[in-house]
Amino acid sequence: MGLSARLVIDRDALARNFQALRKLAGGAETGASIKADAYGLGASALAPRLAREGCRTFFVATPDEGAELRRALGGGEADIWVLNGYDPAARQLYVDQRLGAVLNQARELADFAQGPTGPCALHLDTGMNRRGLPARDAQALIAAPGVLDNLDLRIVMSHLACAEDPAHAMNAAQRTHFMALADRLRPARLSLANTGGVMLGADYHFDLVRPGIGLYGASASLDVPHPFEAVVRLEAPVLQVRAVSSGESVGYGASFTAPRDMLTATAAVGYGDGLPRALSGKGFARIGQARAPLLGRVSMDLVVLDVTDCEAELRAGAPAVFLGADLTETARLADTLPYELLTGLSARPARVYEGAL
Amino acid sequence: MGLSARLVIDRDALARNFQALRKLAGGAETGASIKADAYGLGASALAPRLAREGCRTFFVATPDEGAELRRALGGGEADIWVLNGYDPAARQLYVDQRLGAVLNQARELADFAQGPTGPCALHLDTGMNRRGLPARDAQALIAAPGVLDNLDLRIVMSHLACAEDPAHAMNAAQRTHFMALADRLRPARLSLANTGGVMLGADYHFDLVRPGIGLYGASASLDVPHPFEAVVRLEAPVLQVRAVSSGESVGYGASFTAPRDMLTATAAVGYGDGLPRALSGKGFARIGQARAPLLGRVSMDLVVLDVTDCEAELRAGAPAVFLGADLTETARLADTLPYELLTGLSARPARVYEGAL
Repeated sequence: MGLSARLVIDRDALARNFQALRKLAGGAETGASIKADAYGLGASALAPRLAREGCRTFFVATPDEGAELRRALGGGEADIWVLNGYDPAARQLYVDQRLGAVLNQARELADFAQGPTGPCALHLDTGMNRRGLPARDAQALIAAPGVLDNLDLRIVMSHLACAEDPAHAMNAAQRTHFMALADRLRPARLSLANTGGVMLGADYHFDLVRPGIGLYGASASLDVPHPFEAVVRLEAPVLQVRAVSSGESVGYGASFTAPRDMLTATAAVGYGDGLPRALSGKGFARIGQARAPLLGRVSMDLVVLDVTDCEAELRAGAPAVFLGADLTETARLADTLPYELLTGLSARPARVYEGAL
Repeated sequence: MGLSARLVIDRDALARNFQALRKLAGGAETGASIKADAYGLGASALAPRLAREGCRTFFVATPDEGAELRRALGGGEADIWVLNGYDPAARQLYVDQRLGAVLNQARELADFAQGPTGPCALHLDTGMNRRGLPARDAQALIAAPGVLDNLDLRIVMSHLACAEDPAHAMNAAQRTHFMALADRLRPARLSLANTGGVMLGADYHFDLVRPGIGLYGASASLDVPHPFEAVVRLEAPVLQVRAVSSGESVGYGASFTAPRDMLTATAAVGYGDGLPRALSGKGFARIGQARAPLLGRVSMDLVVLDVTDCEAELRAGAPAVFLGADLTETARLADTLPYELLTGLSARPARVYEGAL
């Protein structure tokens, strides 16, 4: 396996997750959030498969991501929406690559209306206070909607702040607020739900849902069960096996001291690959089916694992595997979310794609 | 500035840090640890400048990183050492790219001796229990050094586990152990010190030091003062400014509630760029000279900042700047080290290099 970790990405699992989301979304169209390079997994290597599975609406963060996605799709008829907004300096890129602009504020509406333009979406803030037209500006637009007259407005959307928690009162409040505003604007398709929103049920689906994390094998919540399959596993070759005697320390800061004689394995993966340093002393790998706890600190290129109970697997040359079906548990141990584990994977581990493009 | 963050990397600061390390290293040669793509900053864009500054020995993690570095150096006479060890399957790559193999265990010594080979280094474990020849194997090698006879052994090295803490007893213990072993092996150049080791003083320098983090603007310790200059700053354009009323919430999970009327800015950077989610509710940006606290959670592509006191700077179009001179403080707030902040930067922010190559 060499001296480097590799990241194995299962396109068939991605496809099944897309179909599972589609089923959950019922009559709504299921788009795909493929921003941040498909949450770190490689938008160009995944989007064509999603398109083959029937996805025709994609969401990216920036015009550059949109242009790369258009290339990956070989042109094609898919709708690509730029969530971060409208940048008049990139006007030609939106036009040439047929990128839809998500308009978030009065200034963007005005810039966009200067044309030439393509399709646009209107993002209304319904309480998250991050992106989107503030309530006051939405009221002004409802009162004087002329600025929309010459625009090709396709979607009116908002974004849920607390969809990961089905019991949170903010979900219903945002939905109510969204409908009240959208009903008074020009007719357009409505979109509110990310993965968490899809799982909140039909009331949240409207015309178009735009899940991300579910596609990539996790839920928006660490606690709510979900039907999504693991899409990625990070495989690190074992470089060296050593006998560590009781009382010896391991790794940086000598933060781990062996409580007994142990067999350890040093594997070629570290935070330089995106395995969080926060897993120090807490994380684990799978070696075959066995669980090998991390000993001491995660370093940049290496980790040390307790392989006292994995001798047979090691003899068979098994790599140390991270993430996979353990993605959510690993996120919990690192005090983060599956999202950040995925986007945090660096360019160093070679990407190996399984399943058809 | 568009809708995306950019990462500005100052090669002149890198060069000054290299010269500062050289001065600290006194008579020892100063090499450069440029593994993990130069701690995430771009090995190909930095190594030629280090070579121009007089660096002639580089350390990478894997043969692939070594080959990329050789290309970046335009061939050249520099020594490149592969720290993760020797992979016989990549034998031809070591030979063709003139990569030095750091041998960590008996098996690697035996594989390497099969030749054809280039130069090698021997890594002795002196108590870190991560990589390197275990003490027992080192004793065996000292007793029967024949396996070294036909090898071009250039360097005998070890690695400090606790160099970030000058008061840690393990530093002197590792040094003593290192010298005791090295004195009984065939003569070669000796190397023990990373950046922390350089700062421990002349006793730790031996023939060759191999700093990494100091080059990139931080110290191995969050507490010890250091002479290194900031090399990177992460600049995010402000996408939207909004008035948030007292009692309104901001961002995912509605985790922040405005205690008073505030002016907020949504900036185009998030954990998808490598800004840790652990900074949620704790981090800050600079806008001009003003400090703008992060409000609520860091999301994948966006953050929300309190800009109540930055109106003038915002009118001037100033971006939100992260890291820079605040690298160490930011690491502390995210409960990590500057190393992980740097290697965690994703490919998405465009790299902008200042200073000559």
